[in-house]
Amino acid sequence: MRNEVFKSQLCSVARALELIGEWWTLLIVREAFFGTKRFSDFERMLGVAKNVLSDRLSNLGESGVMERSAGAGRGNPQDYTLTEKGVDLFTVVIALMQWGDRWINGPDQAPIRVLDRETGEEISPVQVRTAGGKVISLADAVVVPGPGANGAIRRRFEWPREVE
Amino acid sequence: MRNEVFKSQLCSVARALELIGEWWTLLIVREAFFGTKRFSDFERMLGVAKNVLSDRLSNLGESGVMERSAGAGRGNPQDYTLTEKGVDLFTVVIALMQWGDRWINGPDQAPIRVLDRETGEEISPVQVRTAGGKVISLADAVVVPGPGANGAIRRRFEWPREVE
Repeated sequence: MRNEVFKSQLCSVARALELIGEWWTLLIVREAFFGTKRFSDFERMLGVAKNVLSDRLSNLGESGVMERSAGAGRGNPQDYTLTEKGVDLFTVVIALMQWGDRWINGPDQAPIRVLDRETGEEISPVQVRTAGGKVISLADAVVVPGPGANGAIRRRFEWPREVE
Repeated sequence: MRNEVFKSQLCSVARALELIGEWWTLLIVREAFFGTKRFSDFERMLGVAKNVLSDRLSNLGESGVMERSAGAGRGNPQDYTLTEKGVDLFTVVIALMQWGDRWINGPDQAPIRVLDRETGEEISPVQVRTAGGKVISLADAVVVPGPGANGAIRRRFEWPREVE
């Protein structure tokens, strides 16, 4: 399912999707957020076929999103846990969950709620902000070439161009 | 590529992925954020095959993420634009882009930068916060059943359970 075309795309969205865009992959990460560690638990919680799960866990290992280590207990169990790179997908998964709550399940039918452990306060909708705290919507955003832009990106975005 | 297993998953992450998880789909949404409207421009900018693009635009229409309307110019051109539901994916795409910048391209090799049109200030890394503004990491988060939880979700998360 990996698509070579993505390799030619410099864009970080494309390259991030190349790593974690495949459906099962992000659901495995979500499941790891819930504390699942064992192969058989991922299999049962996700209802995913053994060979697919094995393949995805292997990809997640190669991409440095998850790692395998010796778990506690009899029979040399293996634990699959998130690396720092994997834990950092928290914002992506929460943003995607909140979008699904708003537009698919409906906000009053959210299957789970995520609370601050310390205060019990519920998390708010994730927003894009400037360092000064100003909330930025798509209409407020302009795209300019970054430090890693190639010629094509430079030509496309050289003059601050209005985003749709 | 649609996977029936996802329909049985109530989780909003799974249901959101069912709609927008397929690689090309989210890249089409990103391209629409950049202001692309025409079939031939999506085709050229993404380097995607006509039949794949046609299929994905059709899915995006059916899911209410994009809509088609008569465009300006000769030859009855069609414009493909984001609905409100599509525009609301801004946070997800930005969170994914920033993750790719941090972990794949490297922060000093970001291909594009997103600025506030008004002040020219760059956007900050997207964070999960409570209504009070406290930044919540995975380690701070607990999951509890939401108003739309079914029996399985209730049993799993009834006792505020520590997220990994």
